Amino acid sequence: MPPETGLPLDDIRNLIATMPGSDALAVAAVRARDGQLTKPPGSLGRLEEIVEWLAAWQAKPQPTVDRPMVAIFAGNHGVVTHGVSAFPSEVTRQMVDNFAAGGAAINQICLSLDLGLKVFDLALDLPTGDITREAAMDDVTCAGTIAFGMEAAAGGYDLLCIGEMGIGNTTVAAALYNALFGGTPDDWVGPGTGVDTSGLERKRAAVTASLACHNAWLSDPLEILRRLGGREVAAMVGAIIAARHQRIPVVVDGYVATAAAAILHAVDERAIDHCLFGHVSVEPGHIRVLERLGRPPLLDLGMRLGEGTGAALAAGIIRSAARIHGGMATFTQAGVATRSDDSARP
Amino acid sequence: MPPETGLPLDDIRNLIATMPGSDALAVAAVRARDGQLTKPPGSLGRLEEIVEWLAAWQAKPQPTVDRPMVAIFAGNHGVVTHGVSAFPSEVTRQMVDNFAAGGAAINQICLSLDLGLKVFDLALDLPTGDITREAAMDDVTCAGTIAFGMEAAAGGYDLLCIGEMGIGNTTVAAALYNALFGGTPDDWVGPGTGVDTSGLERKRAAVTASLACHNAWLSDPLEILRRLGGREVAAMVGAIIAARHQRIPVVVDGYVATAAAAILHAVDERAIDHCLFGHVSVEPGHIRVLERLGRPPLLDLGMRLGEGTGAALAAGIIRSAARIHGGMATFTQAGVATRSDDSARP
Repeated sequence: MPPETGLPLDDIRNLIATMPGSDALAVAAVRARDGQLTKPPGSLGRLEEIVEWLAAWQAKPQPTVDRPMVAIFAGNHGVVTHGVSAFPSEVTRQMVDNFAAGGAAINQICLSLDLGLKVFDLALDLPTGDITREAAMDDVTCAGTIAFGMEAAAGGYDLLCIGEMGIGNTTVAAALYNALFGGTPDDWVGPGTGVDTSGLERKRAAVTASLACHNAWLSDPLEILRRLGGREVAAMVGAIIAARHQRIPVVVDGYVATAAAAILHAVDERAIDHCLFGHVSVEPGHIRVLERLGRPPLLDLGMRLGEGTGAALAAGIIRSAARIHGGMATFTQAGVATRSDDSARP
Repeated sequence: MPPETGLPLDDIRNLIATMPGSDALAVAAVRARDGQLTKPPGSLGRLEEIVEWLAAWQAKPQPTVDRPMVAIFAGNHGVVTHGVSAFPSEVTRQMVDNFAAGGAAINQICLSLDLGLKVFDLALDLPTGDITREAAMDDVTCAGTIAFGMEAAAGGYDLLCIGEMGIGNTTVAAALYNALFGGTPDDWVGPGTGVDTSGLERKRAAVTASLACHNAWLSDPLEILRRLGGREVAAMVGAIIAARHQRIPVVVDGYVATAAAAILHAVDERAIDHCLFGHVSVEPGHIRVLERLGRPPLLDLGMRLGEGTGAALAAGIIRSAARIHGGMATFTQAGVATRSDDSARP
């Protein structure tokens, strides 16, 4: 990152401030074609909204989902020493290896739906600082990780799904939400991968301690990210920013991935208008976040795995929506009558 | 249909009574494998339930979705003369031609998800009787159409999606639901393809007249089907029955397709245990029916098109669920640690 502009995070602020807007002409073209397709107007419901959204952010009157990519960001967390996860930190690396070997759930979803998959390993041997007593990252690390996450959008994709892997990161996400939206740790802490009652208590205590430690510096969203976040959350912030600049619509996965969107939303509400939320997790705080963001999820399948699995399943629906719009016949092409005239009445 | 056993519909009753049950051993095998896969237990939510459901009805410990088929059944309805649809009856044939030419929404969904598609044209030039004053079908026609629908399950498929096309058939479905579940026409009549206020009033009046006309003979579900149904509903009843006998799980589409399942459910609650409801339509009566049947839908995308579109989108999710279960690595295979021991705690 060029240091001339001041603090490293100022470059990130500048990239957020210069995000391009939506393409109203492309949306108008989609609406005009939709009205001619051989179906009752509005009968495809959310699929029709999705095609307009694709057009708006791809800036294409005929939007495509021909090169969809799933990007998973993996990080480790100092807060894990407080016993906040049912799994040990080593599992983050082991699951990254599992992604590489094709053995994880996300691999099978990508195979079944023909989606690309990239995994970003974010310094797994260097966990972030223990947020109960120190900042997760320094300025340079946070800005550098955001910049690294921007690489996920490079490659000519027309849809980017973002997901994550990181033992302990539901605690990090809960701390971020508590700092962004207020409330109490109870509002944001949930069982994650499946901690027991005492594990839940340790998660709540860690969030409480983290907010107390950083309380005086939680007015700025990027500073919240730097102090309470994780590398995978910072990288997803970068991926969302870069995708916007490259006109790639983004599908956000679950509870942890949504934290990246929530940070950007706190900087500028419009900064996540190119994001669709693939599913709602059963992690209890997720629906609360989506409500605060005003974003209804596409799917509700009782999932809570992460790895981009909910976003990837949503990508299958989104591709079908694009194909329907692009490939259907018009009433004229198909020789199908439109509405009845009144002569059909008795 | 062999006439020796009495009335033609008695053969259908016998086929319902002799449906095979679920395979508990296959379900147990799925659960055992699921517990070894590299994910927290239960973290795939409804996808895990789907794999068990596939195993139960395919009677396979390793269920597959390798040969999914979408079957659309098209019929015409005498009740259309009462002005109950926004579109003229000719559109049923025109849309069947559109399916054949690849121009409809369902064609594009099948292409995008690699699903097979078959269309059953059910005597479109012979609309059923006007249910406001006569039975839709005689016994032989109803039983014969059910038998014809059974053909949909022939071909070695491992998942069958059922959908329909038929101008006027939301009125027919509303009459069936009113007869099966009681209430008033208001509970079951909705805008369908998009009728205006006066069209809605004509639909309600048609349902009221139909129930009054047939009131004395509405105690038997198959008789309700014969009197108030349509050819496409009868054929879907046959498809559901035949799929069960051939151990093919069924994905039911929207408001009209669900009527076929509701008739079978009224004959025997267990008769639709091999059916999954792909989505909930915005047609207001659909969620009421699904609640009566006790079956939560998989998707809620604001759709109301029919043609099997909601079921086909659900099939994409169902295939991903099967592939995840079949293709994921176990903890042992991947060298991933399971739960933390307490040494990880502070």
